[in-house]
Formats: sequence, structure tokens, C-alpha cells
Amino acid sequence: MNQDNTPNFGAYDEYIEQHFDSMVVELREFCAKPTLAGQHIGLAEGVAAVMGLLEPLGARIHVVPVGEVADDAPPVVLAELGASQPTLLLYNHYDVQPPEPLELWDSPPYAGDVRDGKFYARGVADDRADLLSRVLAIRAYLTTIGELPLRVRWLIEGEEEVGSPHLPPIVDEHAGELQADWCAWESSGRGTIDVPHIICGLKGLLYVELHATGPNHDAHSGNGSILPNPAWRLVTALSTLRDERGNFVMDGLDDIADKPTEADMKAAEAMPFDEQRELALYGLKGWQRGLKGREALYSAMFEPTANIAGFTSGYGGPGSKTIVPSKAVVKMDFRLVPRQTPEAMLGLLRAHLDARGFDDIEIVDLGGLYPAKTPVDSPLVQVSADVWRDLGEKEVIIAPMTGGSGPMSLITSGLGVPVVMTGGVGYAESRAHSPNESIRLADFKSAIRYWGRFFAKLADL
Amino acid sequence: MNQDNTPNFGAYDEYIEQHFDSMVVELREFCAKPTLAGQHIGLAEGVAAVMGLLEPLGARIHVVPVGEVADDAPPVVLAELGASQPTLLLYNHYDVQPPEPLELWDSPPYAGDVRDGKFYARGVADDRADLLSRVLAIRAYLTTIGELPLRVRWLIEGEEEVGSPHLPPIVDEHAGELQADWCAWESSGRGTIDVPHIICGLKGLLYVELHATGPNHDAHSGNGSILPNPAWRLVTALSTLRDERGNFVMDGLDDIADKPTEADMKAAEAMPFDEQRELALYGLKGWQRGLKGREALYSAMFEPTANIAGFTSGYGGPGSKTIVPSKAVVKMDFRLVPRQTPEAMLGLLRAHLDARGFDDIEIVDLGGLYPAKTPVDSPLVQVSADVWRDLGEKEVIIAPMTGGSGPMSLITSGLGVPVVMTGGVGYAESRAHSPNESIRLADFKSAIRYWGRFFAKLADL
Repeated sequence: MNQDNTPNFGAYDEYIEQHFDSMVVELREFCAKPTLAGQHIGLAEGVAAVMGLLEPLGARIHVVPVGEVADDAPPVVLAELGASQPTLLLYNHYDVQPPEPLELWDSPPYAGDVRDGKFYARGVADDRADLLSRVLAIRAYLTTIGELPLRVRWLIEGEEEVGSPHLPPIVDEHAGELQADWCAWESSGRGTIDVPHIICGLKGLLYVELHATGPNHDAHSGNGSILPNPAWRLVTALSTLRDERGNFVMDGLDDIADKPTEADMKAAEAMPFDEQRELALYGLKGWQRGLKGREALYSAMFEPTANIAGFTSGYGGPGSKTIVPSKAVVKMDFRLVPRQTPEAMLGLLRAHLDARGFDDIEIVDLGGLYPAKTPVDSPLVQVSADVWRDLGEKEVIIAPMTGGSGPMSLITSGLGVPVVMTGGVGYAESRAHSPNESIRLADFKSAIRYWGRFFAKLADL
Repeated sequence: MNQDNTPNFGAYDEYIEQHFDSMVVELREFCAKPTLAGQHIGLAEGVAAVMGLLEPLGARIHVVPVGEVADDAPPVVLAELGASQPTLLLYNHYDVQPPEPLELWDSPPYAGDVRDGKFYARGVADDRADLLSRVLAIRAYLTTIGELPLRVRWLIEGEEEVGSPHLPPIVDEHAGELQADWCAWESSGRGTIDVPHIICGLKGLLYVELHATGPNHDAHSGNGSILPNPAWRLVTALSTLRDERGNFVMDGLDDIADKPTEADMKAAEAMPFDEQRELALYGLKGWQRGLKGREALYSAMFEPTANIAGFTSGYGGPGSKTIVPSKAVVKMDFRLVPRQTPEAMLGLLRAHLDARGFDDIEIVDLGGLYPAKTPVDSPLVQVSADVWRDLGEKEVIIAPMTGGSGPMSLITSGLGVPVVMTGGVGYAESRAHSPNESIRLADFKSAIRYWGRFFAKLADL
């Protein structure tokens, strides 16, 4: 490490202070429209907004269509700035979750309303303020310090919220344009204890629908004792995926999963965990399966899950209707720990159901994501934490894993590049994916201050 | 029995032949409008249509409002005709099921379209053609034979399709007006073997919702391994209501249920059962729980059931959404055999769940009906069968029970009157409660011919 190379950030910070009001205006403009991959809404506008941010920085931009097989899908934006070594790859996405249910928003989802220092908009926490804070940091750096101390490459996709279905071949085909020494992911934040979190891994994902069928029409339930009931069928099949305590069990599950490493467990044990505040976030009195205290923290990071995201069968309106439903559908997301793959999980699920006579239940594969992991002792993790400390943070949480998922393994496993989630704008009540998504403007400013320092410190490694 | 009193039905049958085309027109008029108790649609018109049929017969009519507590509910119509002994009580209802889903109808649900000798309309099988066939039989009798040979009393309600919630106190308060020697219920038919069915009992009903709650908002499923999932909670609770084979089990269930009597079993054994045709009605290859052949017939009549009529939780739209749902609701109808009551079943269900730690699951009681039973060797059953044989039917099926439910126990247990279901217009593909509900016009004519003879033979007992 060469202390001489570290620039003075006085002018940089002053620039941010002076221009922060107009930065908030830019944030509001950037959040003013939906970009919904699943619904094919606002995709061209989403790309245009990203171009409008990158072009003034002097970025070399390459808009990559996702190909003829999905010509209405949002393209991937690749960009490059600067020329020095090393190379840092940034990952962001310009799509957002749908805003529904609209009636639960206290201000219109694309209005960017500010209340009590919080900025409310769909997508602001996930991932628009993250993306913009990096843009604004580069602008401040170029204006107040000079050329970037490293080369920034940028991968900005438009389908993250629907599972990045077209990203793998694009990363594969453009591996040269994406190659880097390090990578900073989107979407970290401060958690319930309100200190910066640095996250070193994501769980994988397998998303499936289970379909069961009964009579060929919703039938009078007077024959309920003899007609096969598809809702009962799924209930019975699902119940074999939990043991008596409620733990997720499946034939062969343990054989394909890595336990956390010693370093991971050590990092996990060093993490603070305020159970009551975490529970309060969800209005809960306790966790599932009677999990207590730090057990819950470790489970959320290190255990695979079988989650029911939706169960739909028969009549759901007011009052009573006496039918045997004709069909039943369960939506499930399985979160995967390192070494588990969507393909292997899908095979195990099929075999588990077949072995118990449930071969009539159809499994519809809605896609998957691999788990991704960077060692907690990577220099990248150290730099990420040091920058927060330079900014005056007394505590920094280093999480070996988190329960969420994303296409991070395309970078960690696919390109062999260490990846970390840091410098994000989220806080405990950001409610990404829920109504009243928000960030705190103070965190937005911290993130802008963070990234210039991060570039400098990483270049100095 | 006094053969001398039996009138000659030559002129009666001729009258029906001559006027049958206009009777079909009357059926179309009677089916032209919805009368939906649950949705408060067409109630006044429903009463007016019934009055328009009964008044020309010279009936003494008493329209009974259901009281101040439910002043928007459809009234009950009580009527009386004739003066001779004995007294026969007829039960019908003027409400129908909602027509949805509309897109599955091949002709508009209230058009009364005739195709291949079948008449299609919502409510025609359940219960408008039944009611009208009795009206037309009385008209034919009065026109061609003379005064009715017995007193007919009529109970016509407008809430059968929503579980007759206001009927019990009305039957209680008007017991004198309803007292009778015998009672003929609505809604019998011909079944898959296409011969008349005489049904001697109805199962009871308990309808409930089970509610489970998780996080106070649909939460990101990255925390799916620690957040309580209400869909999983209901799956786990429900799975305790079935044994390994799939039989309905509940603590104390067997203690409150009567087994079928010896006479019931003998009657059941005498019933023909065409398993393949029954399965074909539902597009099925087999029954639930591996039931085979006559096992299914006996189960449908004599076993209590726990049916899932609806399961609603989380996301049910296209594609994937990764959430832990905030709530889950299951709708269940329990069908009750003799001696089981809705109150006792509700108590057992609560205790069964509590004993397994599911005291967090809320049970919402949506109402119930008692089982009802008339002995298969009642003279009423004999008369019902004899009339069919007089009409040339070679085979008549006498079913000790059926899987459906209704307020029949108000008459059997409440008034101590034997009740039978006979003389109905339904056939195997009537699809009561489903789109394309229909009757065959030949069955409608048979029913009109049936009721005049039934009055005469019952009077002659």
C-alpha cells in the first residue's frame, strides 16, 4: 500500500455538499418512471436514462441486445471508464419491481416524495440510488481530483428483478469486456443495527411451480370423500419436505451442500445481531421453527430453504363455495447454499416426490441462480471495510453470506473475479420489493462519499 | 291401500303432451333471471316469479320476511293447497348459484337454450325445473282429474345456495303451518346409470376458514429460512387431518359419528354402481386414496369428509415472485354423517389443532347444516319407488344417503316428518353449480307425470 497515492478528499466532499440538493433532484428524475422487465414496461426509457448518466462521464458504452430469441427483453448496458490498472467491475440493474399493491403506498410510487429525510420511490433502494451514487461519485472525482485511479467497467442489466434469464450467455460472450480484478455488486445497506454491511456471498435460487390436478371441472364437494382433491394432494406432498420441527428435508439434500467454512463461521460469530429489532421489522414475536437468537442469524445465512411463495387453489372469494377444486398450484423458491445448483435441486425434488408416489405432481421450472461466494478474508473485503472506517463508521459488519440471490456467480465462478456487496444506500426499513420503498438521503450522501474513496483505496492495494 | 281411489291418468298424461311446448316456454321464463342470495341480486323478482306460479293454482300464500336482523335477505314463501288428509310438505328454493365463470358457458346462462333435447340455464337443475314440474303437475291434476287428493304444503326459500342461514327460526316459528305427514325434498335425479334415484338422507356440513399469519407484510423470501410462513403453517396443520393413506382423521371424530344401519348397508349393497362412468364424469382415472369400485360408493354416502374448497396465499400470478406471504387462508367444508353436528365438529377441530400446537391458527365459522336421515324402509320410500315403476321404469335406485347437504334436518329432526328426495329432473351431466347447467326435457316431462301419480298414491296409503 502506497499512502502517497491517496488523494485528499476535501474538495471532493465539499463538491458533494454544494451539489447535494441537485443530486436529489437527479435522483427524483431517475426514479420517475417504471422499468418493469416482466411486464415489458419502460425498457427503452430505462436504457435511455442510464445512457444519459454515463455519457457525460465520458464512458465508452456498448448496448448489448439480449438476442433474437428474446427481442422484447431489456438490453444489457456495458460501459468502461478510465484506463489505469487495476480494473474494478461494477454491477447494477436498471429494472425495478412492480409497484403493486398501489393502495399501500403513502405517496405515488414514482413521485420521489421526501418525508423526514427519507426519499420514497419504487426502485430507489433496489437499485437506482446505488447506481446513481456511483455515477455521482465518479463525476465528483473527475471534477475535484482528476482522472480515475483505476479502470471502471460496468455491467448494467435490465432483468435482475425477474431472475436475469438472459444474462449468462451475455457474460459468457463478453467475458473480455467484463474481465476485472475486483467487482463491487449492488444492493448492500445498513441493516437493523444501522452500521454498514459488507456481504461476501449470495444464496442460489431454484423457482418452481408444483401443479396438481383433480376433477376436470370444479366439482360439487358432496363427493369430496372420493374425488381426488389437488389442494390436498399438494398439502400432502409438501408436508414431506419438512420434518417434525419444520426443518427443510429432502432426500439427498445434505450431500450437495457445503457447510460454512471456519472463516465464515468466525465472521458470522463476530456479527452483532439485535433479535428484537429484527423481529420488530416484520411485526413478529418469534422466528419459524422456534429458532432463537443467533440461531436465526446463522440459519438465514447458511441453511438452504424451501419457501412457499404462493398457494392457489379453488375458491378464494368472500363466504363459502362448496367445491372440489379442479387444480392447485404452489409457487416455491428454494434458496441454495454453496455447491447446491438449481439443476441438482430440481433433480432431487423430482426424485423425492417420485419416491413417495407423487409422480402425478408436475414441476414447472421457472429458472434458477447459482450461489456465489467470495472469501471473507479477501483484500477486497478489507478495503471495503477500511473505507467505511475512514468515513468515521465505528462498526462495520462483514457478513459471509446473505439470504438473497442474484446473478453474482456469473462473475465469481464464471469470470473468477472476487465480488463484494458494499457501499449501498439501503437501511433496515428500505422495504425493497414492498410498498413505500425508501432510502435515507443521509445514506445516499454517504454512498457518494464512499465510492470515490473506494476507487482510490482499491487502486492503492 | 285402496285401489279404487286411484284415478285414471289418461287425460292427465294427454294434457301434459298437448301443453308440453308451452310448459318449456314457461320454464324458459322462470329461468330468465338470476336470483342470487349471496349477492342480493333479483330477490324481489324471484319471489314474484314464485307467486306468479302459485296464485293461479289457488294456493293460500304466506310470504315470511326473514326478520329485522337480515332485512335484505330473501323471504321464505309458505303456501298451502287442498284440504284432504294426509298432508304432504314440498320443499324447494328459488335462489340459484352464481353463474361464474361466464366464459365457460356455451350459451348465456339465463337464455334457456335448447340443444339436443337439453335445456341449458343456471338453476334449471337446481332447483327451478323441480319446482316448476310440481306446479305443472298440480295444474294438470286440477284440470284433468279434479281436487287434489291430499293437502300440499310448500316451503320455498331463497337462501339454499348460501346454506339457509335464516331458515331454522322460521321453521321453528311456523311449525304449525309446516306440519305434515310426509315431505318431498328438492333435487333428486337419475345419476350415471340413468334410472331414478330416491335418496333418504343428506350429510351435514361445517364450513370454516383457517387463517394463518406470518410477517406483517409480504416479505423478501431471502429470509425464508427464519420468517414464519403462513402457507407452510396451514400445510403443516392440514397434514395432521389425514393419515398415511389420506383418510380424514381428527381426535374424537369416530366418537360422534353413527355407522350406517344394517338396513342402510343392505340398501347400499343393492345399488348398482358403474365406476367407469362415474369416473368419466370428472375425467378421472381413479378415486382419491386408492378407493376402488363399491368402496367409493360407500365412502361417498357414509364417511365424513374434510374437503379443501380453496387455498389462497401469496403470489398467484404469472412467473415468479420471491416472497414470504403475510397471510394464508384455507376454506374447508366438512361433510357430516348422522349424529355429527357442526358445533361438535367445530369443537373437535379447535381441540385437534390446539393439541398439536396450532393454537395460532384462527378458525372462522361460516355456518353449518345438520345431517338428516329417513329410514330406507319408510312407506314414503316405497311409494316414491312404486310411482316410478308405474311410469315404466325397470330399475329404481334407493340410496340411503347422499354426499350433499341442505336444511333437511329442520324437517326430519325438527318437525319429525319423514323426508325423501324423489321425482327430480336432474341427470348425470346436469352440472349443478357448474357452467352449462342443464336438464333433459324428457326428464322434465317425466317429472310432471310423476307428481300427479305421487299425490294419488301417497293419499292412498
